[in-house]
Amino acid sequence: MTIEALAATLRETLRPDQVLTDRQQLRTYECDGLTHYRVIPGIVVFPRTADECADVVRACVAAGVPFVARGSGTGLSGGALPHADGALIVTSQLRSIVEVAPEDERAVVEPGVINLQVSRVANPHGYYYAPDPSSQQICSIGGNVAENSGGAHCLKYGFTTNHVTGVQIVTPDGDLVRLGGRTPDAPGYDLLGAFVGSEGTLGIATEVTVRLTRLPETVRTLLAAFPGTDQAGVATSAIIAAGVVPAAVEMMDALAIEAAEAAVHCGYPEGAGAVLIVELDGPQAEVEAQFTAVEDFCRQHGAFEIRIAADDAERALFWKGRKSAFAAVGRISPDYIVQDGVIPRTALPQVLTRIGEIAAEHGIRVANVFHAGDGNLHPLVLFDETVTGQAERAETVSGAILDICVQHGGSITGEHGVGIDKAKHLPRMYSEDDLDTMQLVRCAFDPRGLANPGKVFPTPRLCGEVPGRRKGAHPLQEAGVAEVF
Amino acid sequence: MTIEALAATLRETLRPDQVLTDRQQLRTYECDGLTHYRVIPGIVVFPRTADECADVVRACVAAGVPFVARGSGTGLSGGALPHADGALIVTSQLRSIVEVAPEDERAVVEPGVINLQVSRVANPHGYYYAPDPSSQQICSIGGNVAENSGGAHCLKYGFTTNHVTGVQIVTPDGDLVRLGGRTPDAPGYDLLGAFVGSEGTLGIATEVTVRLTRLPETVRTLLAAFPGTDQAGVATSAIIAAGVVPAAVEMMDALAIEAAEAAVHCGYPEGAGAVLIVELDGPQAEVEAQFTAVEDFCRQHGAFEIRIAADDAERALFWKGRKSAFAAVGRISPDYIVQDGVIPRTALPQVLTRIGEIAAEHGIRVANVFHAGDGNLHPLVLFDETVTGQAERAETVSGAILDICVQHGGSITGEHGVGIDKAKHLPRMYSEDDLDTMQLVRCAFDPRGLANPGKVFPTPRLCGEVPGRRKGAHPLQEAGVAEVF
Repeated sequence: MTIEALAATLRETLRPDQVLTDRQQLRTYECDGLTHYRVIPGIVVFPRTADECADVVRACVAAGVPFVARGSGTGLSGGALPHADGALIVTSQLRSIVEVAPEDERAVVEPGVINLQVSRVANPHGYYYAPDPSSQQICSIGGNVAENSGGAHCLKYGFTTNHVTGVQIVTPDGDLVRLGGRTPDAPGYDLLGAFVGSEGTLGIATEVTVRLTRLPETVRTLLAAFPGTDQAGVATSAIIAAGVVPAAVEMMDALAIEAAEAAVHCGYPEGAGAVLIVELDGPQAEVEAQFTAVEDFCRQHGAFEIRIAADDAERALFWKGRKSAFAAVGRISPDYIVQDGVIPRTALPQVLTRIGEIAAEHGIRVANVFHAGDGNLHPLVLFDETVTGQAERAETVSGAILDICVQHGGSITGEHGVGIDKAKHLPRMYSEDDLDTMQLVRCAFDPRGLANPGKVFPTPRLCGEVPGRRKGAHPLQEAGVAEVF
Repeated sequence: MTIEALAATLRETLRPDQVLTDRQQLRTYECDGLTHYRVIPGIVVFPRTADECADVVRACVAAGVPFVARGSGTGLSGGALPHADGALIVTSQLRSIVEVAPEDERAVVEPGVINLQVSRVANPHGYYYAPDPSSQQICSIGGNVAENSGGAHCLKYGFTTNHVTGVQIVTPDGDLVRLGGRTPDAPGYDLLGAFVGSEGTLGIATEVTVRLTRLPETVRTLLAAFPGTDQAGVATSAIIAAGVVPAAVEMMDALAIEAAEAAVHCGYPEGAGAVLIVELDGPQAEVEAQFTAVEDFCRQHGAFEIRIAADDAERALFWKGRKSAFAAVGRISPDYIVQDGVIPRTALPQVLTRIGEIAAEHGIRVANVFHAGDGNLHPLVLFDETVTGQAERAETVSGAILDICVQHGGSITGEHGVGIDKAKHLPRMYSEDDLDTMQLVRCAFDPRGLANPGKVFPTPRLCGEVPGRRKGAHPLQEAGVAEVF
């Protein structure tokens, strides 16, 4: 069956504005936050209820049409990149707050609800939703679940997977199923855990039960300027090794600071080779005691200036530089790759040194802005596409950075997911048997391979193939990618 | 192939003392901590390495013989109950501490390592392993992983699943595969999360990487005596609602106190209808401030006596009554069922009242000893098997308690697992579609159904059967249970 026939089927039950097939309108959805992959979807559908979402999936299954779910489209690994011959199922009409239950520390929301909105409705009860991706003003809870999103404060509070206790999903067969619930650690397999971070390959969340976290009694924030990233890295390790768990420990290097100053004039200390933003939250008594310890560690390890936020305004200014840094890099480079890797915290100094060496060897600049506390690096690899060969060299450096992360016992992604961008890198971490095992689970949920095909796994395979991988199409072909920018 | 042929195959490569087939020796392994189900295994095998474990599983697959893994055999849901025509693979020879890496807050151990041993080797570095089942002096890490074990301090620190970052497993096909690793939240599906708590149905762990937790600066413990469980329940809710997260909040009711006094003379306050043990740990400054708040909440909600442990000896005495309570109940009743259910904390008073009513209706006594802080109940249903009808009435009350838990939005097990004991209760929580989805994953790992068959799922089904359940054998038959005591 064709996309046209699917459109006709869907238009029988849905309102006209819930089904887009006009090519100009479809183009709006050609990419997510990873803008160098673009694919115009075959059709875009906006279900308004879980049942409608299940109906849409069942119609796709009946038509043999692949489908991709999309929240706000802010993902950075191309997880929501559409399929050229497929349906893009957008959850933006599923935006109800179903329930706020502070007495059980839970909220129940639909997947299109914006991350920050959960905190807004919980705040009057003294609670908030802890995972805070930098895009939290616009990204959706459903997308957060798909990518197991992190954020600056995940050092202390954990990732999305630690804050979701239950979901209702549409399986790739079109069944509505509940995984987990209100209480943690339900009996049976923890399929909720497997679903969170499965990047749309195991189904589409239609309702999410999240844990609410008590607003802290106190928040204190300092900005410490160091001569370089080595000293800032050692200070980070010292803080954590002392048993202090700050809410956030964020690092920016000189190039990232330069970009942030150019963009938002955040006024960080002059001459800093690196800054750390350290935030502590919790009971007043604890925070005061630990804050002094953090200050001491920073000074002992070479901080030449420490500023303590006197009020919310100054705290916001510290964060402004950090939160704007990704976008700000556009001020100092026409093009850049946002990389995302993880290393053991203790390896920070040697890994940052090695990244610098590799960048220099290739004549490429790398700015570092990252979650130092949990070793989640975000090297920004700068290049100019109009200079012949720079894009390729930037890609080489970007890939080499992942190798360094894996060599140091780390991971090829911390919080941005695998999506289309890193599928090819998965074998750097996993053996064929490891990947086969994941593939078995994918096929258990999706024997037809219609749910977000071409994402996450390096080599597309038909379910039912005997183990032993097909030397087949590139994942980009499988995803129907027509143009690569 | 017969068990005899399997034994012959295994004896070709293993030492004689690694393979037991003598019926008297086999009888040692006829049950785990759930002693009223007993099955003599067909053969018992003791692999000494991961490779040997994989070889044993492959030999079982080749012979078509089902296999069950067993750690220390302390489980309370019969998860390690042997199969009469199967192999019992005991991990007690896999007992190496592979690595202790305090700088990365990790330890790597083999599955037969005793829970408490991990803390012993971590302590000199200032760390410990947080999950603390009451059986921690004897239970194994592999068993903890299989059952996703909890313990008194899981209120603050989380369950086993929150402290395991990687495993090497033998899949039911006999492949050695790694799930997760040293860094948290690896890319791809979180199959580590699905494996933890899968009760031996998805494979056998042969190496476990655990998170180490910094030893707290301070620990303070109080014992508060209340007129009854209502007041103690409300006090528990008030403590948590105030944003205080104690390391543990444990409750015992009058009958449990009576049993503990008879057994270990713990000297709890006279006339208490309920006691709470509240333990706070963390930085000195935080603990002091919060400890005062906890005391105040207890008094406000009816505590008539509060004792604060002056030293480690007194702290140990508070805990002695609690930790001995399960066994102590043997002093006041010849037989009893240890139940395990979860409810939202806020429902504690009404659920305990309802349990009391149901017990009275059936003329059965129920003692309550439990993790009040996370609503994890452990009602001990007392009976005398020699009195006609009492065992049946106790079973009725025990089942009714689970219904009450589910009706209040809770769960049929908190930390003891499903095993053989609660398989029949799983449909109280899950729809057929939910169970089918789990079954798909089981079949993805274990298409032959050889890994711990008859456990966890209520109705045994062959993989490849179309959805729609077979009205078939009782799970006990599937597990080859010959005698039910």
